[in-house]
Amino acid sequence: MSDLPIKLGLLGLGTVGGGTVNVLRRNADEIARRVGRPIEIKIASVRELSAPRICDCSEFELTDQPKQVVAHPDVDIVVELMGGEGLARELVLAAVHNGKHVVTANKALVALHGNEIFAAAQNAGVSVLFEAAVAGGINIIKSIREGMAGNQIELVAGIINGTGNFILTEMRDKGRTFEDVLAEAQALGYAEADPTFDVEGIDAAHKLTILASIAFGVPLEFDKVYTEGISELELVDVGYAGDLGYRIKHLGIARPVADELELRVHPTLIPEKRLIANVDGVMNAVLVRGDAVGNTLHYGAGAGAEPTASAVVADIVDLSRALAGNSAAPVPHLAFQADAIRARRVRTSEEFTSAYYLRIDVNDVPGVMSELTTIFADLGVSIVAITQKEPARGQHHVSVIFITQRTNEALISKAINQIEDMQDVLKSVTRLRVEHLDS
Amino acid sequence: MSDLPIKLGLLGLGTVGGGTVNVLRRNADEIARRVGRPIEIKIASVRELSAPRICDCSEFELTDQPKQVVAHPDVDIVVELMGGEGLARELVLAAVHNGKHVVTANKALVALHGNEIFAAAQNAGVSVLFEAAVAGGINIIKSIREGMAGNQIELVAGIINGTGNFILTEMRDKGRTFEDVLAEAQALGYAEADPTFDVEGIDAAHKLTILASIAFGVPLEFDKVYTEGISELELVDVGYAGDLGYRIKHLGIARPVADELELRVHPTLIPEKRLIANVDGVMNAVLVRGDAVGNTLHYGAGAGAEPTASAVVADIVDLSRALAGNSAAPVPHLAFQADAIRARRVRTSEEFTSAYYLRIDVNDVPGVMSELTTIFADLGVSIVAITQKEPARGQHHVSVIFITQRTNEALISKAINQIEDMQDVLKSVTRLRVEHLDS
Repeated sequence: MSDLPIKLGLLGLGTVGGGTVNVLRRNADEIARRVGRPIEIKIASVRELSAPRICDCSEFELTDQPKQVVAHPDVDIVVELMGGEGLARELVLAAVHNGKHVVTANKALVALHGNEIFAAAQNAGVSVLFEAAVAGGINIIKSIREGMAGNQIELVAGIINGTGNFILTEMRDKGRTFEDVLAEAQALGYAEADPTFDVEGIDAAHKLTILASIAFGVPLEFDKVYTEGISELELVDVGYAGDLGYRIKHLGIARPVADELELRVHPTLIPEKRLIANVDGVMNAVLVRGDAVGNTLHYGAGAGAEPTASAVVADIVDLSRALAGNSAAPVPHLAFQADAIRARRVRTSEEFTSAYYLRIDVNDVPGVMSELTTIFADLGVSIVAITQKEPARGQHHVSVIFITQRTNEALISKAINQIEDMQDVLKSVTRLRVEHLDS
Repeated sequence: MSDLPIKLGLLGLGTVGGGTVNVLRRNADEIARRVGRPIEIKIASVRELSAPRICDCSEFELTDQPKQVVAHPDVDIVVELMGGEGLARELVLAAVHNGKHVVTANKALVALHGNEIFAAAQNAGVSVLFEAAVAGGINIIKSIREGMAGNQIELVAGIINGTGNFILTEMRDKGRTFEDVLAEAQALGYAEADPTFDVEGIDAAHKLTILASIAFGVPLEFDKVYTEGISELELVDVGYAGDLGYRIKHLGIARPVADELELRVHPTLIPEKRLIANVDGVMNAVLVRGDAVGNTLHYGAGAGAEPTASAVVADIVDLSRALAGNSAAPVPHLAFQADAIRARRVRTSEEFTSAYYLRIDVNDVPGVMSELTTIFADLGVSIVAITQKEPARGQHHVSVIFITQRTNEALISKAINQIEDMQDVLKSVTRLRVEHLDS
């Protein structure tokens, strides 16, 4: 062990920044025993010098000039925990140009500007690590990038937004509506005042972009991800899914199909027997299937000050162990060597294959079921389950639920168009995708 | 990318060796894209040159002289997949002395001789990696050693023997006895002809030894692990546990208590709502709790040719990425730097704290329950659940089940002694430990 510290410069001291300081201080002894050298925070930048903080800042310099951090001559590793993608991008690029290694927890930054940042890092001979950008404390980046490096990845399917999973869990367990739970989540601080990123699936799409890149060796292409949120999900469908033995989870799914990829984020019915169907509340879990290893599941807290700090510190330790051994971290940013990354065509939603849940609200008159099943039969869509509840007393319309076999989404769209043209169909068909996640 | 291959020498071409060759060949392109250089098998040693194999051996040299492999001048990495701990130890030490990096899947070797081997590797400036030694395809070593490096580990609790978990799952699901399921597992090839290592917990104790070392920075001390197998487990207790909302799993548990450690392998009741209670069949899962990250769960196949090969190849990729970058892998063998490993006292079973399940078979006469509850009350043991079934028609003895609060094992032993001295108690008390695994 050497006493010469590895020196950090922090950008941002909010929830994750403060949590990182607290973890580094509290576990300083164990971390030094793991790295071989102590880790020291040299300087940290904040927006307002006088704002209250969750951590003790007495042992390092505070500045409101973030450029001082990335240019500081003593700093070995810049840790970007400020969020956003404008100033954060500038500062990370500046740090890289100054020969600093970088650790970031910023999923939007990596998903949107990762290609540019990693190319710059490669040129400068430094590493930019981002474990905390996906699923907080679960080391899913490391597991895919290193632990499963011998595999061809066949499927990534993850619950990667804790707010969304909390809302879906409450809807199912307590029979509450989306709007009702969202309001509570906002009051509790689980959801942002503007919840768009969480409930419309954008946050999950950022993370899926990153997972797909390291799993398949493709460039980061956020704009190719098909994204559907949970804000349109109706409580009645959560109930019907439960009756049929399924739970609805908001999944990010990435899978190769021949030479192409499916990249999609949407509410998904999963058989309730699967472990991942039982991941509740704000917890995250990612199922990764490799051709050699088979199915693996990686479960833990996806957000919060210290779970996220755990991942940030793991990256700091990785870099510090490498620096202590006088070598840059030998793992390529996106799992594959920079010159081995190859784009693959990403499929449109009409090209997806999936099983489907369809809820069709119809007049309860003779012949409707026959008309519906004829439409499916004529299109070659096989049905694996049908359920129809008795109409409520005095009502003359009913909901009919179909679950199809795995088929092509274009066929389902065609079926839905024909169904919505039927005289006895009362409103738009509700379509959800079903993934069995077996093999 | 460079065309210069990283060259391997394999010791053993059985199930795991053959699986490793198959994975390296099938995924050669993706692996080279990840490493930056191709990986080539140069030579492999086998016991019998003419035996049938599960892999194509036409592209490398075969020998029945394993010393040729560890001394081969072209070999960069020796991959030990022969098992056993006599010859394997000699060959691994020879490889290390010859300046070769080593990858091994051999848990007995690491648990029993790891301290010696890692010291030799440290001296020789090489790495000995062993991801496949614990829980096959789950990268639990990497997750603890690197992914959770910022945490103080508070608990490791794992289902780390697939054969045992298969037997327990069948007992519960099908109401079959231990002996019956074991015989089937042997016929199917899941269990060895001599099943002692699996069913008496020795295999799990080897793995727990390794997990404890990397989690807590202590030396490998297999002989300090308290080990209880599943061979004494009675079907009736599996049923009672189920009635009370628990599942019985064979867990390896390691946790720090003040400055000491508990290291124990035994059948354990777990609340059926925990994810890990629902890990069935031959699958493995390890719960790791860190002070920053909270609870994490790591799930996947624990054995089999290709899941194990997945971990072996991940280690080969780690070393190859480091070799391609001209540096040794910067991660210390046991997670902590060699000079930072510190022994901690390991507690005896009488010092354990746990909740307990006690089945007491008694004559169905007045006053027995009062006598039992008085014993617990006098010792200060709190009871959280009691269940007693009506005696079968014509029977005069009944089973009474107690579940205690968390307490000291010495107190429970004292209670059991007093209970077994009671006149109306018919036979030895069955004692199982209960872990709630919440926090």
